[in-house]
Amino acid sequence: MGIIVQKFGGSSVADATKIKNVAKRIARTHEEGHSVVVAVSAMGDTTDNLIRLAHEISIDPPERELDMLLSTGEQVSIALLAMAVSELGYQAISLTGTQVGIITNGFYSDARIQSINKARILSELERGRIVILAGFQGVSIDNEITTLGRGASDTTAVAIAATLEANRCDIYTDVEGVYTADPRVVPNARKHNQVTHDEMLEMARLGAKVLHSRCVELAKKFSVHLCVRSSFSEAEGTMVVREDEMIEEVVVSAVTSDKDQAKVSLLGVPDIPGIAARIFQAVADEHISIDMVIQTTNPKGTADLSFTVTEKDLQAAIKIIEGLKGEIGFDSVSPDKNIAQVSLVGIGMKSHVGIAARMFQALADANINIQMISSSEITISCVIDETETERAVRTIHDRFELGGASS
Amino acid sequence: MGIIVQKFGGSSVADATKIKNVAKRIARTHEEGHSVVVAVSAMGDTTDNLIRLAHEISIDPPERELDMLLSTGEQVSIALLAMAVSELGYQAISLTGTQVGIITNGFYSDARIQSINKARILSELERGRIVILAGFQGVSIDNEITTLGRGASDTTAVAIAATLEANRCDIYTDVEGVYTADPRVVPNARKHNQVTHDEMLEMARLGAKVLHSRCVELAKKFSVHLCVRSSFSEAEGTMVVREDEMIEEVVVSAVTSDKDQAKVSLLGVPDIPGIAARIFQAVADEHISIDMVIQTTNPKGTADLSFTVTEKDLQAAIKIIEGLKGEIGFDSVSPDKNIAQVSLVGIGMKSHVGIAARMFQALADANINIQMISSSEITISCVIDETETERAVRTIHDRFELGGASS
Repeated sequence: MGIIVQKFGGSSVADATKIKNVAKRIARTHEEGHSVVVAVSAMGDTTDNLIRLAHEISIDPPERELDMLLSTGEQVSIALLAMAVSELGYQAISLTGTQVGIITNGFYSDARIQSINKARILSELERGRIVILAGFQGVSIDNEITTLGRGASDTTAVAIAATLEANRCDIYTDVEGVYTADPRVVPNARKHNQVTHDEMLEMARLGAKVLHSRCVELAKKFSVHLCVRSSFSEAEGTMVVREDEMIEEVVVSAVTSDKDQAKVSLLGVPDIPGIAARIFQAVADEHISIDMVIQTTNPKGTADLSFTVTEKDLQAAIKIIEGLKGEIGFDSVSPDKNIAQVSLVGIGMKSHVGIAARMFQALADANINIQMISSSEITISCVIDETETERAVRTIHDRFELGGASS
Repeated sequence: MGIIVQKFGGSSVADATKIKNVAKRIARTHEEGHSVVVAVSAMGDTTDNLIRLAHEISIDPPERELDMLLSTGEQVSIALLAMAVSELGYQAISLTGTQVGIITNGFYSDARIQSINKARILSELERGRIVILAGFQGVSIDNEITTLGRGASDTTAVAIAATLEANRCDIYTDVEGVYTADPRVVPNARKHNQVTHDEMLEMARLGAKVLHSRCVELAKKFSVHLCVRSSFSEAEGTMVVREDEMIEEVVVSAVTSDKDQAKVSLLGVPDIPGIAARIFQAVADEHISIDMVIQTTNPKGTADLSFTVTEKDLQAAIKIIEGLKGEIGFDSVSPDKNIAQVSLVGIGMKSHVGIAARMFQALADANINIQMISSSEITISCVIDETETERAVRTIHDRFELGGASS
């Protein structure tokens, strides 16, 4: 049998009891004859607590020192998990990012993995040991500790799985898999047995919290078999697979929503070529990404322009636009936080027509007004009033008959 | 000006406010024109809390994993201290034992430093940076994180000072220096301006808590100028110097006491050559060190034998002796925790006679019974009833007129 990589998030290792449970699960996989490599996050709220401590000392702590600080969180959890596995009578060894040789580009707090030295891991596996790695961290070629950004333990796990050509990379989390919609919003949401990397990527982009885009991109690039499953149950989970590996024919996979969206509306913009480009360039220069855009010409011969950004970027975007007022000469700019994006994702939408129309009709029948629309090959998204989010998700989920018993 | 190494213990960096105060002190030394290298312990009770967490998971956690766990404590404090120094407008960089290259022999939980790579530290100092090092930890040649034993941040500081040929190594602690006796026991105890390495070593061995023997041994070996001083006051502190550097003529430097002693008494031991050796070998085989020994022959022609061990070794020592009963055939063995050792330390005792007699007379005058006696070139120790400890210390301190204003 080959190598299985297992990743456990912070909530799965939040205390001694949970760590012992995770150890049992790891031991079971080892007993099944697999070589087991585990990537772990920091315990529970550790990372947030360390950040709070840093901010008691400095409003804007140096990023290098913040990485030095935060990387201790995973070092604590790998040591404790290795102890728990040893306590069950199995050989385990914990390794930091530095010890493995997870080489990064040295961008503190948001480093990218450049290479992974697999020699140490393989030699430990050959000795029959269970290898427990610190997620989220790496080391630059200058021997500096770097972290990979929030939620990046998933990325560590997938990168390790790719490097070791593992049979599977299991991401253990607090949900049982990938659903047709958030089960807290749609009680009859169905868990998928399979989704494609592209669907998973779009779901992550469009508001599903289950996996980070970066880890899915990496899994797609290296054809890693990702499995999302629960730390707290024995349920099968959802496999994230290549499109040619999909067994089921699915048109629509999921309805997602994202309330972390805001709209910037400019009224009375001169209708001259290049004005929109000037505005978007100014916003992009401040590293703010714009999602949807809509432009309409009004009877006065000027244009009204709206675009969406994430809520955290809203104030900065408004400031940039106001700074352009003298140069461009629009009438007014206004922010609107009270919007949300609901989206439909499905690999089968490539080859099926009429999906968008059915979605719009469902919203219309429910008296939910669509403010903006965008689509890609496998998604359709609508901006609506934020207060209608849950109702919109349920309406669309029903219309496409996504609910029911687990497929 | 040269390099000054400063070491701050856990109580000096116990919270954000204290860390900021330490940062100010470091910055001041830097402002005076020195190159500053700092060694730091883990914050407050961090190490104890991590050990507790480990024991929630395993009664006897693997030492490698315990070192992996505990070394995070210092990594947190160096990062926070570097942030605090940066916040004051100075350039600071934290370095782990691995990053410095504090190479150890790989004995987990009690590693010995074999070499220190000074290149990284020197290059950071040349860039004008304040270098903040994790105490207590090193790395083996196999890239394994090892810790140096409790209280070993002092050792790190002295080893670094020796390697860098620093002008001085300041050990900041919660007392103002080295006293003629514990000021909590003897209110008029006097702070020394100077003591020799040998005196400091004996004081550490005989119960003074201010410095660990290992760090003093290292300082002696490499002629490091150690200074013990307070993190919380501006007082001058005590210099630990070579004997030829002593300015003052001192006969007696300090009265120390150690309650962490216990006595094992064997009654009716056959008075045959080799019996005592057999007993002590059996105890030594279990890595229990024996301090004082007394043997008396009783009228029945058998011997009574007593020896002292530290309290934590008492149960194990009794067990070993009981295991020898069949082989040796003594009458009985009994433990006694209710003893303490009071000692007199002074470099001048080498060349002065009558010191021991004065000490015994002082105890006799105070009606304190001496159970055992031992001495070295610069010490005399008496075992007495534990309940008399403080009174004995005060009595001896008075008799040798050690008190008074700071010398």
